[in-house]
Amino acid sequence: MKRGPVVTPLPVLLVGTYDEDGTPNLMNVAWGGQCSEKHVALNIGHVRKTRDNIERTHEFTVSFATADTVVPADYVGIVSGLKVKDKVARAGLHAQKAQTVNAPVFDELPLTLECRLDEIVETKTEEIRITGEIVGMSADESILTEDGKVDLAKLRPIMFDSAQNKYRVIGDIVGDAFKDGLKLK
Amino acid sequence: MKRGPVVTPLPVLLVGTYDEDGTPNLMNVAWGGQCSEKHVALNIGHVRKTRDNIERTHEFTVSFATADTVVPADYVGIVSGLKVKDKVARAGLHAQKAQTVNAPVFDELPLTLECRLDEIVETKTEEIRITGEIVGMSADESILTEDGKVDLAKLRPIMFDSAQNKYRVIGDIVGDAFKDGLKLK
Repeated sequence: MKRGPVVTPLPVLLVGTYDEDGTPNLMNVAWGGQCSEKHVALNIGHVRKTRDNIERTHEFTVSFATADTVVPADYVGIVSGLKVKDKVARAGLHAQKAQTVNAPVFDELPLTLECRLDEIVETKTEEIRITGEIVGMSADESILTEDGKVDLAKLRPIMFDSAQNKYRVIGDIVGDAFKDGLKLK
Repeated sequence: MKRGPVVTPLPVLLVGTYDEDGTPNLMNVAWGGQCSEKHVALNIGHVRKTRDNIERTHEFTVSFATADTVVPADYVGIVSGLKVKDKVARAGLHAQKAQTVNAPVFDELPLTLECRLDEIVETKTEEIRITGEIVGMSADESILTEDGKVDLAKLRPIMFDSAQNKYRVIGDIVGDAFKDGLKLK
């Protein structure tokens, strides 16, 4: 396989930070995810604007690429904030300061985790692992159920299909968690 | 939110190990994923048969729950191998030894990463993080494209929708990675 064996599904995490002058930055991370009930892990390369920003501000956001934001999500994964200062503006995204942390949320990205840096660790594999505590969440009302839960059918998050180099949207419900398995008990 | 804010999509990783007497074991992990080009990370509780097994054998497999295996995948997440010795048999799964590691692959799970333990680290959040190097991969021919790549439309991996406590299958292609974003460049 071209890109080597990988976990599936891979998420498309959009990590928001502020540059030293307050310019919002956003990058695209597939090697990361939930690592405890209230923590996320991001594995990225050493030389990243996002790394510099998180080391300085100790805060970041994690939003989720959606079927409606494939183009800007892919763009912020191709272009580095080290080279293109206004990448967020070029992506057509509009940033606001998050409620609980000093990092941007984006009008076009309807679900965001607001995170405080836990630690940055150099890994054996020439990446760094950034872990953060989720201290807040912001969600657009348009993606919630009537009782206020996130409705993934409305959010339509995408995942990275690395075997085919495609993005795929989340699909239909096929089972009940912590319930279907009880049939075998 | 009932289960707290979470990353989406969450994978449904099925981690295979051998007990001390060679009985195959399997558990269901949502807090994990790819952490470098050839490494996976699993975050699980301290008291797990899987932890004991990996500490002893230093090897494990990671398969992916599919739309066809929702019931056994959910079952192995509900029941602990510490209490139910024959959980794999009860799940209706059939184990074979993996080609490259001393851990089981399962006839019913068509895609498996074969992993060698890198390290087990106690985290601040009362879990352990197990990282492994992917040293092999096995795939059933039925899930491959004609040119030998994994076809996720054939595999139909599922993800855990924690907001609704449902499993959802992977959906349609909605974009080209490393290509759609070039429109903005």
